[in-house]
Amino acid sequence: MAKFYSLMIHGGAGALDKIRNSRDADTCLRSIRNILECGQAILKRGGAALDAVETCASMLEDDPLFNAGRGSVLNERGKVTMDASIMDGRRLDAGAVAGISGITNPVRLARLVLDESDHVMLIGEGALRLARRHKMKTVPERYHITRHRLDEYYRIKEKQRGKKDASPGHRHGTIGAVARDKKGNLAAATSTGGIPFKKEGRVGDSPIIGAGVYADNALCAVSATGHGEMFMRTVLAKHIADLMSFKKMDVKAAARSGIAFLGRKINGQGGVIVIDRHGRCAACFNTRTMVHGWIEQGGDIKCTY
Amino acid sequence: MAKFYSLMIHGGAGALDKIRNSRDADTCLRSIRNILECGQAILKRGGAALDAVETCASMLEDDPLFNAGRGSVLNERGKVTMDASIMDGRRLDAGAVAGISGITNPVRLARLVLDESDHVMLIGEGALRLARRHKMKTVPERYHITRHRLDEYYRIKEKQRGKKDASPGHRHGTIGAVARDKKGNLAAATSTGGIPFKKEGRVGDSPIIGAGVYADNALCAVSATGHGEMFMRTVLAKHIADLMSFKKMDVKAAARSGIAFLGRKINGQGGVIVIDRHGRCAACFNTRTMVHGWIEQGGDIKCTY
Repeated sequence: MAKFYSLMIHGGAGALDKIRNSRDADTCLRSIRNILECGQAILKRGGAALDAVETCASMLEDDPLFNAGRGSVLNERGKVTMDASIMDGRRLDAGAVAGISGITNPVRLARLVLDESDHVMLIGEGALRLARRHKMKTVPERYHITRHRLDEYYRIKEKQRGKKDASPGHRHGTIGAVARDKKGNLAAATSTGGIPFKKEGRVGDSPIIGAGVYADNALCAVSATGHGEMFMRTVLAKHIADLMSFKKMDVKAAARSGIAFLGRKINGQGGVIVIDRHGRCAACFNTRTMVHGWIEQGGDIKCTY
Repeated sequence: MAKFYSLMIHGGAGALDKIRNSRDADTCLRSIRNILECGQAILKRGGAALDAVETCASMLEDDPLFNAGRGSVLNERGKVTMDASIMDGRRLDAGAVAGISGITNPVRLARLVLDESDHVMLIGEGALRLARRHKMKTVPERYHITRHRLDEYYRIKEKQRGKKDASPGHRHGTIGAVARDKKGNLAAATSTGGIPFKKEGRVGDSPIIGAGVYADNALCAVSATGHGEMFMRTVLAKHIADLMSFKKMDVKAAARSGIAFLGRKINGQGGVIVIDRHGRCAACFNTRTMVHGWIEQGGDIKCTY
């Protein structure tokens, strides 16, 4: 097994569609680069892919620029409820949480579900009980809510007044990370605040194994971002893994074919980052932009959108 | 398009493992036959596959013999929380609910999510708000809890006393239905009370599109039953659909290959029912039993376990 590592992270497909060429994009890319450097430090010294994706996803959650953890969008009732998942490609172990409030890092709670429970998915209060049992730090509601998201919330609310069924329009800002460590293990993590003005209780693709996240050492690690419902209906992360498994596609062809399927089959929008078992990287999206960065087989850090 | 219909339903893999050859098995099979007859009536007169699977799944939920709706298992806190999903193979539309209490038929609420919301999955209180808005009948907690499940709960609790991490042992009783109607449309539905003594907030594969349920007119309709976490980690329903799509397997080979993958890859236990676009039926399981019945291409009703 070749002794190199690969790492990819994303900060959402479509999130920068409206601010292309602005200073905000540079701020995003700087954050992506900084977070990649931290993940690189873990993988370079022989750390586990699972730890690298957890750390990178946590840092993306902590950055209010992205729609996950701090900076999450608000639901129709003005609340933040978050979803996250993490998957270990060694034995297909996975952990996921949905409808979570009051903790800083949903992806760390997903990791607890993976490590400490017999279950794959815990939601709401049950998940928070696990967090408390493991002394996970709690934060007041105002921690997650940024000025930017509050403005967005009132803008949508204003727009919907009188137009009861007006769609809020989907801004995609889910974050995610995929990695291959020096031992050849793959891992993936995805986390999100969801869709602005989503209905109370709505869960998207981010915590759904096979939709927003997937990892199998024999194939690839995938993290998805976009209009979550579309990724759920096409089970897109697993779709891409199966293209590699059953059609023997390489990672770039599989990512491209997966996003083409998403668009063709149900007019879905979004993107994916994928690393295969050789550490080859692929990113594909059909939105105008997807903020992402990568280190392929121990090479240089690259960032783009 | 050939003008016949097919229908399959199941009452859980493993549920009858311990009562083989007893009178209970006959009672289960009588119920399965009765429910198939009702689904048949819908499909025979040209009704939609989606309506047939919803009706059959609802009837299975109403029957306290099965672990879904009335007769659901209790979680570690002695509560019933249910998960369900439904999927329309025409445009891959799907609806799912998780962590639901207080209504008779979670699968009908999943249908409401499909029909009436922009989302695919709603959990807990948010899902129940949708139920109330559509005047869905609510029931007190005691409606769902049967004597049998209460005894089971206290038996497990007794066993776990002093042995803190004792596994409750997984009884699989999820229910499901798949159908092809005369127009060639496919649909699938799955519903469950989960695993006995599950942690609060645990969600299994039943409401996860691609894990416990999948339907695509171009391929097949799948409903799964078994140790839910295993179906989530392998994304088994989508796996089977992809075997048909990418490997051109027929429905029986795909079902067999899917269950073989589940066992080989992660030692998972359970079963699936699958109908392909031609109305051909397949059932496969690696538990000792799976209560199920079917009507293949307008033929006779068959039931077995």
